[in-house]
Amino acid sequence: MRFISEQRLDGVLEREFTLGEIPGILWTPASASAPAPLILLGHPGGLHRMYPRLVARARQSAEYGFAAAAIELPGSGDRPRWAAAEQARADLHRVLEAGEPVSEEIVDRLVLPLVEKAVPEWQAALDALLSLPEIGGPVGYSGGVIAIGIRLAVVEPRISAAVLFAGSFVPRTMFEEARQVTVPLHVLLQWDDEGNDRQMALDLFDAFGTREKTLHANMGGHTGVPQFAGDAAARFFARHLS
Amino acid sequence: MRFISEQRLDGVLEREFTLGEIPGILWTPASASAPAPLILLGHPGGLHRMYPRLVARARQSAEYGFAAAAIELPGSGDRPRWAAAEQARADLHRVLEAGEPVSEEIVDRLVLPLVEKAVPEWQAALDALLSLPEIGGPVGYSGGVIAIGIRLAVVEPRISAAVLFAGSFVPRTMFEEARQVTVPLHVLLQWDDEGNDRQMALDLFDAFGTREKTLHANMGGHTGVPQFAGDAAARFFARHLS
Repeated sequence: MRFISEQRLDGVLEREFTLGEIPGILWTPASASAPAPLILLGHPGGLHRMYPRLVARARQSAEYGFAAAAIELPGSGDRPRWAAAEQARADLHRVLEAGEPVSEEIVDRLVLPLVEKAVPEWQAALDALLSLPEIGGPVGYSGGVIAIGIRLAVVEPRISAAVLFAGSFVPRTMFEEARQVTVPLHVLLQWDDEGNDRQMALDLFDAFGTREKTLHANMGGHTGVPQFAGDAAARFFARHLS
Repeated sequence: MRFISEQRLDGVLEREFTLGEIPGILWTPASASAPAPLILLGHPGGLHRMYPRLVARARQSAEYGFAAAAIELPGSGDRPRWAAAEQARADLHRVLEAGEPVSEEIVDRLVLPLVEKAVPEWQAALDALLSLPEIGGPVGYSGGVIAIGIRLAVVEPRISAAVLFAGSFVPRTMFEEARQVTVPLHVLLQWDDEGNDRQMALDLFDAFGTREKTLHANMGGHTGVPQFAGDAAARFFARHLS
């Protein structure tokens, strides 16, 4: 892990890094006196495009004394193009524009290879981040891609709690993995999410095997998560990571 | 309205009152310097039986500077018996014990007369409570019976926001009333509520006409609402009544 830039924002130290070929950003609370718990900020890919929302989430995490980090997804942003993933995304857009139903085949092609590639990268990032003296633990995962969050929660014992955003497609085979999740979950659902089947999101919430799970459903579309819903998610982490 | 007892609890002044023949309890924050917003505490009937949970909710409200009040439901607690309501309850219990589906006819008989009687009583209580110098406004309704909360939110313009507990039967005709609700709503759903149909609760949430509505679903049965869910409901009122 190599830091390549550093800037002080109000209350937060922001550092860009690379982990091998993977770009990432780490935010640590400026006022931290002890090693901070860490929140991995999930996102749909494109660190530059997502930056305004990521930095807002990182600042909110810092208010609770948490560090936060994001890495670029494979095939997104400045990372090498990934032909199969681009084909799957193109097929999805074509189907959506035609108003056709999204087949399980497309969802599998879109999400499963991404999960397979991204999860070990998040784990490698976790190794590197937890070796920093300013980062302690425990660790939470927050956001989408929800299938990545599910897989991480199942295979990575260092994840202690997760805020999952039910705003993206989930392959049917991952419902079985959802049953294996045992860490506390806080699931966000935008009731009118244009890129997400509401009934599937409710079925997924029902499937999670953990005993402490909460669903927060709010009005509006995919990007309309209200401020107070972000506050509630931060308090969930405060209960489980502090 | 006549006060019949008064005691100081930690941080709260508790006064029992009667409003005509209706018993009630008013809790006001001991530290209030200005007229306090008011939360009407809905409950399934039986003030004495419900007292431990009501006083806990009142104390939580007082922490946010809110007064809280509850009145006895018609036919419950020390109020005169109500033969038709008792018959409906007996029929419901018989059906539930036999494991039979609860018919719309029983739900209508159980809930509609209760709503018809209880809502004007809540409104009379509101008249009396808002005439007290220590109570200002705005006013919120919190709890069940959810059908009472729906009707109050529709017919009573002094209700500014409501926390509704989706834990009791709702007559089908009230879905139309739900569409007329326009105040901000915070709906609590216990995912495995033994006395509540989950899909009906989700359909009801979908039906509410208000633009700001949030669903908080938590694990467990009817009485298992976690402490953090109560906190979240109190913060909802803090956003809308302060």
